[in-house]
Amino acid sequence: MNKIEHIGIAVNNLETSNVIFEKIFGAPPYKTEVVESEGVSTSFFRNGPNKIELLEATNPDSPIAKFLEKKGEGIHHIAFDVDDIVSEIARLKAEGFTVLNETPKKGADKKLVAFLHPKTTNGVLIELCQEIR
Amino acid sequence: MNKIEHIGIAVNNLETSNVIFEKIFGAPPYKTEVVESEGVSTSFFRNGPNKIELLEATNPDSPIAKFLEKKGEGIHHIAFDVDDIVSEIARLKAEGFTVLNETPKKGADKKLVAFLHPKTTNGVLIELCQEIR
Repeated sequence: MNKIEHIGIAVNNLETSNVIFEKIFGAPPYKTEVVESEGVSTSFFRNGPNKIELLEATNPDSPIAKFLEKKGEGIHHIAFDVDDIVSEIARLKAEGFTVLNETPKKGADKKLVAFLHPKTTNGVLIELCQEIR
Repeated sequence: MNKIEHIGIAVNNLETSNVIFEKIFGAPPYKTEVVESEGVSTSFFRNGPNKIELLEATNPDSPIAKFLEKKGEGIHHIAFDVDDIVSEIARLKAEGFTVLNETPKKGADKKLVAFLHPKTTNGVLIELCQEIR
């Protein structure tokens, strides 16, 4: 766990929300990316060593669509940067956490990712992410 | 906005949750602090350039008690580090955001803080914080 890589925020409309976060950070998103496998359209803002990822659902079965329906717009997950996602998954499993992706999957922004179930982490959806080198 | 200063997580029991996050970060909280004015008992974990703040309510009127009652445990706010909180408040007000503390107040961990209303920030409670030098 090197740092907070990004915070993921679920939004109803990416275009509208890009304007809001551009005002907050004083700069537009440095990239936008559709991750079809996850059913999300994303945009990324830099904030020093950290990033903010906005997530809009691209279809009604997307986890983000379900989150928005249940909880409305807001923080969806925290992602921590790790050097070796495979060993971190093993370590956290051994510590008793429920890892949702025992084999890491490809996420947005050139990352291998895995999630911890919020029931074992105080209701916080935690993502581990390792840069694909 | 220099970086994510910390993420605040509302928890039912600080002692129990300290154990969970000590497992995640591999180190215990570097400090604990009661902020009576806010009705919270807090602990702080370091994660590279960022921190995680756990917040337990110390009384039933605490904003954290109300949050837990309504939403349960989970992420409560994101705090961004700023150099000059007074000018950031003025800038964000001019951009149309609702600032809950037009005069910054003293928060935990030697900071001056102010919050933006989540209705203007996609449901995200944003804290600005400036180190008291």
